Amino acid sequence: MAVYTHVSHDELEVFLTDYNLGRPVALKGIAEGVENSNFLLVTEKGQYILTLYEKRVAPEDLPYFIGLMDFLADSGVACPRPIHGKDGNALRSLAQKSAAIVSFLDGICITKPAPQHCLELGKCLARFHVAGLDFSGHRENALGPAGWRPLFRQCEHDADTILIDLSSMLEQELDYLDAHWPDSLPNGVIHADLFPDNVFFIQDKISGLIDFYFACNDILSYDLAICINAWCFESDMSFNITKAKHLIQGYQSVRSLTEEEISSLPVLCRGASLRFLLTRLYDQLNQVEGAIVTTKNPIDYVERLRFHQRAQTAESYGLT
Amino acid sequence: MAVYTHVSHDELEVFLTDYNLGRPVALKGIAEGVENSNFLLVTEKGQYILTLYEKRVAPEDLPYFIGLMDFLADSGVACPRPIHGKDGNALRSLAQKSAAIVSFLDGICITKPAPQHCLELGKCLARFHVAGLDFSGHRENALGPAGWRPLFRQCEHDADTILIDLSSMLEQELDYLDAHWPDSLPNGVIHADLFPDNVFFIQDKISGLIDFYFACNDILSYDLAICINAWCFESDMSFNITKAKHLIQGYQSVRSLTEEEISSLPVLCRGASLRFLLTRLYDQLNQVEGAIVTTKNPIDYVERLRFHQRAQTAESYGLT
Repeated sequence: MAVYTHVSHDELEVFLTDYNLGRPVALKGIAEGVENSNFLLVTEKGQYILTLYEKRVAPEDLPYFIGLMDFLADSGVACPRPIHGKDGNALRSLAQKSAAIVSFLDGICITKPAPQHCLELGKCLARFHVAGLDFSGHRENALGPAGWRPLFRQCEHDADTILIDLSSMLEQELDYLDAHWPDSLPNGVIHADLFPDNVFFIQDKISGLIDFYFACNDILSYDLAICINAWCFESDMSFNITKAKHLIQGYQSVRSLTEEEISSLPVLCRGASLRFLLTRLYDQLNQVEGAIVTTKNPIDYVERLRFHQRAQTAESYGLT
Repeated sequence: MAVYTHVSHDELEVFLTDYNLGRPVALKGIAEGVENSNFLLVTEKGQYILTLYEKRVAPEDLPYFIGLMDFLADSGVACPRPIHGKDGNALRSLAQKSAAIVSFLDGICITKPAPQHCLELGKCLARFHVAGLDFSGHRENALGPAGWRPLFRQCEHDADTILIDLSSMLEQELDYLDAHWPDSLPNGVIHADLFPDNVFFIQDKISGLIDFYFACNDILSYDLAICINAWCFESDMSFNITKAKHLIQGYQSVRSLTEEEISSLPVLCRGASLRFLLTRLYDQLNQVEGAIVTTKNPIDYVERLRFHQRAQTAESYGLT
């Protein structure tokens, strides 16, 4: 949950004069997204989400994110649609932060997904990947393999305070991934953070995806591996193969995985586990005094990583 | 800001079958109120606020709060209107918590009130007091004078860790208030927490009041003293007499203060300062590990209290 920046009534009144949205009627900070400040904004024209981009989002990346949402909304992938101002710009400035207004997306996220939800997710992820192939923007994955070791270097000395021998486990895993990371899998735009809180449902059907602020160009099936990590483990960290089967089946009903993508699934899942393990570890070791964000437990991803290390083939994920 | 309890999609679906609001369309945790969990709830019928009552609100008090909001909305005091279920009840249970749905109130709170806002607040507060005279419910002020010394007892040993000699200052103030607290001023329903974040404005006019979960029966002009503390000091703790004049003038344009109420204003302001000083001190000394609430600085109220201690008459507040 996150509201880091305060927006005054006066600032909002002035800000809205750049749009065709009428005057402000209500503004409420909402508990959505941990990276930015988000508000429900009601104007004379309807309800919207106002986002102020905080320090974790690089300003130079914003045109990519906004352009991607514009492109996806035009392509029929349900997601928030950026609202453009009278001058055509969707990105502007409010309270000394970069800011954008997007359309309000109906739907509610599901925190305990059932296999049916995973099936829907798989279809939606594949549709997003297929649509994204025509998107002209490009953004490197700052949290891809090349970013993992620098992140580890900032945690290695304190990692063992979280879990004994964690530092050496991470170093060995980085070595393994350096040696085995696939380099010729189909690439495209990936969401890269498609956790259940970024997927809205209405009556068991997906109404849309949100939070594209980790989106980038990378291996498409790595995005699937992120979803396997995020959607197919129970709260006791046990792996639910039924959910994984449904997720992959849904995905393949829209976009077939190549043989190499299938055989690479275990290593992609290891990489995805490591990525979230490293960022959670970093956040845990670098908690900001007085921050109103609850850090997530990195140990959850140690458990996931151990599962993937034991998985030798895609059969471990229900693929036959 | 506060969302303490998670509500699942399934729980919400079932919960809403008790209402004539249609099916859920969206649910977003909002950063409003520090005592309870609040959500923006969109259903097929419109938008609402869903509140889950957390541990600081006594369940036995809830009928008073809900009844008061019903009464005020019927009396034309703009405030959230409780939504009653098919069985007529507005209070029920969700995710093991007491819960209620209220209407969505348009408006935006103003964090840096101008004199004009204080004038509007004064009028609105007086209208609320006058309307409340006919409300039949009764609730003692748990944070009134009788509650201050027990609260102090829980803080006295650690108070000096916050500010040197704070403990003895508090004890002397409690003695002074015990000796000088007025006992024959007009009583009625007071809001008791009418800070700027509980007052919504649309274009400089008040659209409504929210958060009645400290409301109780107490001295009416004590509520005015709370507003003087909450609205008439600048961020550097200087007292803005123009704002106080406007606040009191607005109030008296609807309800005239008696001579005794006017002469009691300094002591009422001292009591109001002490009340918020004590609860903030208690919260600061008893921070819950991992809580996502930012505690407010008790020192702000030491400064206010010192101002009121120097004020000998109501003239210090702009009354002539």
